Amino acid sequence: MSDRIFNLGAGPGVLPEPVLRQAQQDLWNVAGSGMGVMELSHRGKVFDRIIVEAEAACRELAGIPDNYRVLFLQGGASLQFSMVPMNLLPKGGTADYLVTGVWSEKAVKEAKRLGTVHEAASSADRNHSYIPPASAIRYSASPAYVHFTTNNTIYGTQWRTEPAPPAGVPLIADTSSDMYSRPIDVTRYGLIYAGAQKNLGPSGVVLVIVRDDLVEAGATDLPTMLQYRTHAKDRSLYNTPPTFGIYMMGLVFRWIRSEGGLAGMAERNAEKATVLYDYLDQSDFFRGSAEPESRSLMNVCFRAPTEELEAKFIAEASKRGFEGLKGHRSTGGMRASIYNAFPRAGCEALVQFMQEFERANRAAAVS
Amino acid sequence: MSDRIFNLGAGPGVLPEPVLRQAQQDLWNVAGSGMGVMELSHRGKVFDRIIVEAEAACRELAGIPDNYRVLFLQGGASLQFSMVPMNLLPKGGTADYLVTGVWSEKAVKEAKRLGTVHEAASSADRNHSYIPPASAIRYSASPAYVHFTTNNTIYGTQWRTEPAPPAGVPLIADTSSDMYSRPIDVTRYGLIYAGAQKNLGPSGVVLVIVRDDLVEAGATDLPTMLQYRTHAKDRSLYNTPPTFGIYMMGLVFRWIRSEGGLAGMAERNAEKATVLYDYLDQSDFFRGSAEPESRSLMNVCFRAPTEELEAKFIAEASKRGFEGLKGHRSTGGMRASIYNAFPRAGCEALVQFMQEFERANRAAAVS
Repeated sequence: MSDRIFNLGAGPGVLPEPVLRQAQQDLWNVAGSGMGVMELSHRGKVFDRIIVEAEAACRELAGIPDNYRVLFLQGGASLQFSMVPMNLLPKGGTADYLVTGVWSEKAVKEAKRLGTVHEAASSADRNHSYIPPASAIRYSASPAYVHFTTNNTIYGTQWRTEPAPPAGVPLIADTSSDMYSRPIDVTRYGLIYAGAQKNLGPSGVVLVIVRDDLVEAGATDLPTMLQYRTHAKDRSLYNTPPTFGIYMMGLVFRWIRSEGGLAGMAERNAEKATVLYDYLDQSDFFRGSAEPESRSLMNVCFRAPTEELEAKFIAEASKRGFEGLKGHRSTGGMRASIYNAFPRAGCEALVQFMQEFERANRAAAVS
Repeated sequence: MSDRIFNLGAGPGVLPEPVLRQAQQDLWNVAGSGMGVMELSHRGKVFDRIIVEAEAACRELAGIPDNYRVLFLQGGASLQFSMVPMNLLPKGGTADYLVTGVWSEKAVKEAKRLGTVHEAASSADRNHSYIPPASAIRYSASPAYVHFTTNNTIYGTQWRTEPAPPAGVPLIADTSSDMYSRPIDVTRYGLIYAGAQKNLGPSGVVLVIVRDDLVEAGATDLPTMLQYRTHAKDRSLYNTPPTFGIYMMGLVFRWIRSEGGLAGMAERNAEKATVLYDYLDQSDFFRGSAEPESRSLMNVCFRAPTEELEAKFIAEASKRGFEGLKGHRSTGGMRASIYNAFPRAGCEALVQFMQEFERANRAAAVS
């Protein structure tokens, strides 16, 4: 029996167990070097192999073309909210943002500190319970770029396909909560960023994939650390990078490959989400929060009949070994985050528990 | 017998073995939570205890007063090179920098992008082989702050005591390579920053200790993530912090406490450095690089009679289990980095090997 529970937290979240087992060994002595992985010089041969292999695995998984840089940076998506406009929103220009939740709103807020923002679409009218259809998007005349958030952890919504920006306008995506959970056509994007701590690794490292022409076009009057070109030029080794986080991402990329790559992840994640959504759709006790056609395969948000029952459900679930089910404070309810590393068995066990809870508490709901 | 070698690298460097053993366990299941430490929500109870205890241990070690914030940030010292002037160098103001090596120079370069810098002293005239005496420092009329680098990894020099800025002017220090290697009187400083990866933990987390009035006085027209007040207000939890790095720092702080605290570290580090410097001082084959009164207790830089012998020494040392001895490319020679976690036995073993090498190669040096 495992001594580990089902971790349904929204992130930092569950990591693949084979990755954790490998990391346990490498913490002490990695690759026969006599040094732990955290103790390696970032300029030495052992770490060089680690970062080169991590980048290669990252590229292989999504078939990233040669005219894109793969960068391992710090500061999370939150710093990218500023680095994107600092580098790519020229003075006097306008950037278009598609607003589908709190994280998009934070990205807008930081961009507004630096220039003009046009909200080309928003789902705020129905509390971000849906993804705006293409017909609802109104781009500005000549945006510097179009920014969107692929998956919205708080509301449990996810874009099925990329929005289509005007011809020649770079598409920029915050993919923090669904990166490499499914195939992604990098050529549709100018820049992609993803904090690692949901599907890719530990917190403290953010993956940035950026097209060469945008690196080159970036502003030059910025602090060195805030220019993409600095990190592109030095392969993420301008200064000491988050070496352990990069190592972990490399392990996770290899684990994804061993599980069938991005297609394998997509299949697995769709099956896991179906287990939960199918149950929610037939339940007259629990109900899904997001509009069905916008549902996230990563964060399944749902409600019980009353807030009292929700509190009781979360408390009993915790006793039964399901952690992290409490929804975001801004929405309430429950949220089951079922990132890449979360097992299908956990979804099935959760449904079983929800059925039991439903049976035991239906009377309370009706009364 | 251990399967680990003597890691004399300049950083990321050796970590305490009891800390690594603890981390190996906690990677899988921390504090009986059923989740690995990297998999914990940064908003959950288990991680909250980790960050609260890490801060408490950090405060206890140096007796940090209540009017200082302890922050765990990202981006390393390199991002602090910019955050310091962005926050604390007002438009039209001048900041004074004491230049004692490459890292000071990088700090100057970033500050110059943002405002006026006065170099109040420099050791560049003798290739940074010494720390400027107080008599050589010329402050500007009214500096916004005075910045210095406490220890210079590349040249093997270290300030014995803090420089004394003009009355009322905040002293700011990059202590990345000697933080908590000895007692530090935080009240002498306005702001202290230290990348963790030498004495405090893994790379990817930077410790910032900043006085409240400087947090409050900081510029407000900056990206949210680049304002100290953001992180001070939210106790380093404005966004997802580098949770694993913070956890590791907490373990290291507790290890330091168990080894006698900062006084214990200072005694131990002085003894270790003495083992090496005493040998260098009596050798007519090897010689120390830094001027004796400015020698670092963290990075012992030394030369052999010829570059050929240096290359041979580094190669043979590696075969004997001493890694990371190659000096920085800008200086050449050798560097033994003997941070907190490096054992005295390693210094003694290194001297023994140096004696052997000296005996075996003296003829080559004379010829």
